[in-house]
Amino acid sequence: MEKERISQQIKFIFEIDKLKNVTRQSRISDNSREENDAEHSWHLAIIALLFQEYANEKNLDIFKVIKMLLIHDIVEIYAGDVHVYDIEGNKTKSEREGKAAEEIFSLLPPDQAEEYKNLWFEFDARKTAESKYANTIDRLQPIMLNFLTEGHTWKKFGIKSHQVYEKNGHIQEGSEEIWALVQNLLAECINKKYLSE
Amino acid sequence: MEKERISQQIKFIFEIDKLKNVTRQSRISDNSREENDAEHSWHLAIIALLFQEYANEKNLDIFKVIKMLLIHDIVEIYAGDVHVYDIEGNKTKSEREGKAAEEIFSLLPPDQAEEYKNLWFEFDARKTAESKYANTIDRLQPIMLNFLTEGHTWKKFGIKSHQVYEKNGHIQEGSEEIWALVQNLLAECINKKYLSE
Repeated sequence: MEKERISQQIKFIFEIDKLKNVTRQSRISDNSREENDAEHSWHLAIIALLFQEYANEKNLDIFKVIKMLLIHDIVEIYAGDVHVYDIEGNKTKSEREGKAAEEIFSLLPPDQAEEYKNLWFEFDARKTAESKYANTIDRLQPIMLNFLTEGHTWKKFGIKSHQVYEKNGHIQEGSEEIWALVQNLLAECINKKYLSE
Repeated sequence: MEKERISQQIKFIFEIDKLKNVTRQSRISDNSREENDAEHSWHLAIIALLFQEYANEKNLDIFKVIKMLLIHDIVEIYAGDVHVYDIEGNKTKSEREGKAAEEIFSLLPPDQAEEYKNLWFEFDARKTAESKYANTIDRLQPIMLNFLTEGHTWKKFGIKSHQVYEKNGHIQEGSEEIWALVQNLLAECINKKYLSE
């Protein structure tokens, strides 16, 4: 165990504890409070495992997807969470998050820093099968939470159904089957008045 | 996409959202509140990835370890969290958690129910290299949080250093190197009066 290496790793492990305090707009299923990024990432990882069979790409490197989902929001410790419907915030999101990725993953020893930076940029670029599927799951889960909380964030921000369809269309890049599921879920939400047309 | 299958999977995904409300004794690093099981599981998964090089078993199935850590506390939705120093609670813990594992994973389609039950029982039995290493990480992280919160739970429950050494000795089954790290960390905690001898 090399002393500098382990102390870099520990510093990173301590730093990312802060993700437990980065709150999102989604509420957890009992509607008691906003979800944080750490528990969100945990939930996504399990959903990705269970729904792998629905991915468009049947020969997915699912372990890579899980690693991506575990680390994809860590940049928000420095860059903050931007709501998907926040037009201004989203203009500069990718740039600010890219800088944050450089900064936070650089706490790690060089080999691990490189591995996790690469994973994060791959996730963000949404070009590979793994990153497309990971992004699909990252978009699916907030819709599930909106369903469970009777449209909490949609109502709070006055979001209409056409905005939800537009912002989540890329779900189908990772999984046509999950996109079909989402369409059913959204139809039920409209029907139940959780989401207005 | 088979209708019964997907609805079983969704039911499970909705149900495990409750893990975000199962609180532990550990406080998060800024000492503002107790950690919950979902964010704890997320933290463990990342630590396990970063510390793989310190595992006793060099040919570990690390993906299996990550899956174990993601699901290992789900049983606490039904069985509750038992503090490691709660003698009475720990007498019946394994039995109650085993029942909870049967119940909650049975929400899934049969093939996935079997896979995740098996993973959970393997984790709990601590016989395989993967489960030993996963348990090592599960014991390491609360010690880290105690270090960061100046011994919050040790002080709260009047835990002495010999109890910490006894309860965490099996860290070395998964990693001698992490056990050495923990011993250094505990010596520093004693030195700083976070933990009394």
